[in-house]
Amino acid sequence: MRLADLGERSGVPLATVKYYLREGLLPPGRRINATQAEYDESHLRRLRLVRAMIQVGRIPVATVREVLAHVDDDSLGLTVRLGAALWALPHPAGEAPGAPAEVAGPSREAAGPSRETAGPSRETAVDPHRAAADLLVDELLARLGWSAARELGALSPAHRALVTTLATLHRLGYPLDADDLLPYARTMEQAAAHDLDRMEQLPTPREQTEYAVASAALFEPVLLNLRRLAQCEESNRRYGL
Amino acid sequence: MRLADLGERSGVPLATVKYYLREGLLPPGRRINATQAEYDESHLRRLRLVRAMIQVGRIPVATVREVLAHVDDDSLGLTVRLGAALWALPHPAGEAPGAPAEVAGPSREAAGPSRETAGPSRETAVDPHRAAADLLVDELLARLGWSAARELGALSPAHRALVTTLATLHRLGYPLDADDLLPYARTMEQAAAHDLDRMEQLPTPREQTEYAVASAALFEPVLLNLRRLAQCEESNRRYGL
Repeated sequence: MRLADLGERSGVPLATVKYYLREGLLPPGRRINATQAEYDESHLRRLRLVRAMIQVGRIPVATVREVLAHVDDDSLGLTVRLGAALWALPHPAGEAPGAPAEVAGPSREAAGPSRETAGPSRETAVDPHRAAADLLVDELLARLGWSAARELGALSPAHRALVTTLATLHRLGYPLDADDLLPYARTMEQAAAHDLDRMEQLPTPREQTEYAVASAALFEPVLLNLRRLAQCEESNRRYGL
Repeated sequence: MRLADLGERSGVPLATVKYYLREGLLPPGRRINATQAEYDESHLRRLRLVRAMIQVGRIPVATVREVLAHVDDDSLGLTVRLGAALWALPHPAGEAPGAPAEVAGPSREAAGPSRETAGPSRETAVDPHRAAADLLVDELLARLGWSAARELGALSPAHRALVTTLATLHRLGYPLDADDLLPYARTMEQAAAHDLDRMEQLPTPREQTEYAVASAALFEPVLLNLRRLAQCEESNRRYGL
């Protein structure tokens, strides 16, 4: 199909399609003469994925490019290919406000006898909230029997982001324990199995990796809004409309 | 406690505490003389909530102010108070790329006979993807027995955001069906019940509403990273490390 057809079939404005081509997010079509190129179903599939990553997943263009480089790397085996593509996705972490490095020094405006005398040693001390979060994630993974996740540990961006978020919540006075997290983790385990079952129905490793990326990045707003709806429903059930 | 103690106990830098005071996100302390004010545990709790909403939940300051205005409105009954605070939170929606309004007009660069002839009527036509998403959400809520969510329908921002996201995924060639969504929704239902059980243990409606906001806004990065970890674990289980 021609470029205009590609835009029309995908619902993506032509100017945007051209932008993706220039940025290398979409591979060039097959030249048929000096001014025209031919695009096929793989371009359409890729265009939809790119558009969804950027618009639904809110993933920056540079990150999309990095993820796609792994998706397209036919030299990788499926495991490494999947892992590399998924690990390159953004992992939302609750950053650690008030972590030791961020604590303000003694302030001129601190009235009365200041207790902010811990000084620079505080900067290098072990963060007790992070230590608690580390222990919690370790307990959770052990109880789940997720041995690969335990082995990979902080190498995995999802592991790091989870620890950081739990450390932040702990620091802010919202501690969670393994019993809070287990039912969520079990559901995510079932969902992941379902995802891979679907993925395996696709014919090529490239399409399989594209599917895994789409599912990881795009399903999140669905999940979060289902949660909000459930909260509203349960509140109405208990306290009336 | 004094302002400096408030900063120290919360781990929030003093300059940030002062900024929150100026912005009205934190109520003023009780004046004890011309230069000093006294703060209590409710200030500490509020400071932690504000910090977490902004840093973990990435919620804009103006939105935090709006949410807190509902949290603090003692004139409201619990249901409306909870509802108003939760509905004021941001609801991440996959925006609708390529929705009719966004389709580019006929382009000078469209080679060959252009098929972009639908013209302005296209702008007002019913979007088939949105119609499909509407039907899907309706089927899902009926099967779940979530009658309040059905009744409120598009009044609820979570409902609107869910439909928009599913319409976008449908348009981009990633259609979901009710069987895909049901297990997620059921888990979220259990989680919401658990959340409200915990909330009810708190002594005052204000603290209960604060807890509900914290849980809605702050638990999301935890959930998303558990999902990524589960995907990695399942992939390693099937295809080896």
